[in-house]
Amino acid sequence: MSKRGKPEFDELILSRTRLGIISALISGDKLEFTYLRNALNLSDGNLSVQIRKLEGAGYVRVEKMFVDRKPKTFCEITRKGRRAIRDLIATLDRIANPD
Amino acid sequence: MSKRGKPEFDELILSRTRLGIISALISGDKLEFTYLRNALNLSDGNLSVQIRKLEGAGYVRVEKMFVDRKPKTFCEITRKGRRAIRDLIATLDRIANPD
Repeated sequence: MSKRGKPEFDELILSRTRLGIISALISGDKLEFTYLRNALNLSDGNLSVQIRKLEGAGYVRVEKMFVDRKPKTFCEITRKGRRAIRDLIATLDRIANPD
Repeated sequence: MSKRGKPEFDELILSRTRLGIISALISGDKLEFTYLRNALNLSDGNLSVQIRKLEGAGYVRVEKMFVDRKPKTFCEITRKGRRAIRDLIATLDRIANPD
């Protein structure tokens, strides 16, 4: 809790779409952009925006590589990204079980 | 997970402001609107909107009463509201610990 009694939530991870991306990546696999887009049923634009936000926060690492001479974008969760979801769970747990 | 592999998050509770309101109410106390507004550092308008959303979902009960002849608005978490936060924790836990 902050001084004002307001719990500190990580705004960046508190989004259904971004939690969906983090969830898909949490196993540790590098996932391809198109795969993520289809699995999460998102538009290219929305997935790009959300990935960029997660990348900016250091929660996701993005790597571009050529596969069969075609450029592909791969995403991977970082240690910081894992910590972010664990911190969110811990904060919620403290809230739900205040004693 | 849904058929598409997308985890099911309760959009209604996935908001920093609404989680703040739920957190403030979780002890079970009936809290007055002005108290909540100050504790969470929100505007009247924003708090009203968010409370109405939580009330609409059945997560919060709103009661108007007179105290010293002045109308006051009290908010209280419902059983459904408690369940919502527990479900969110459970979903996140499953995501963070997939085995």
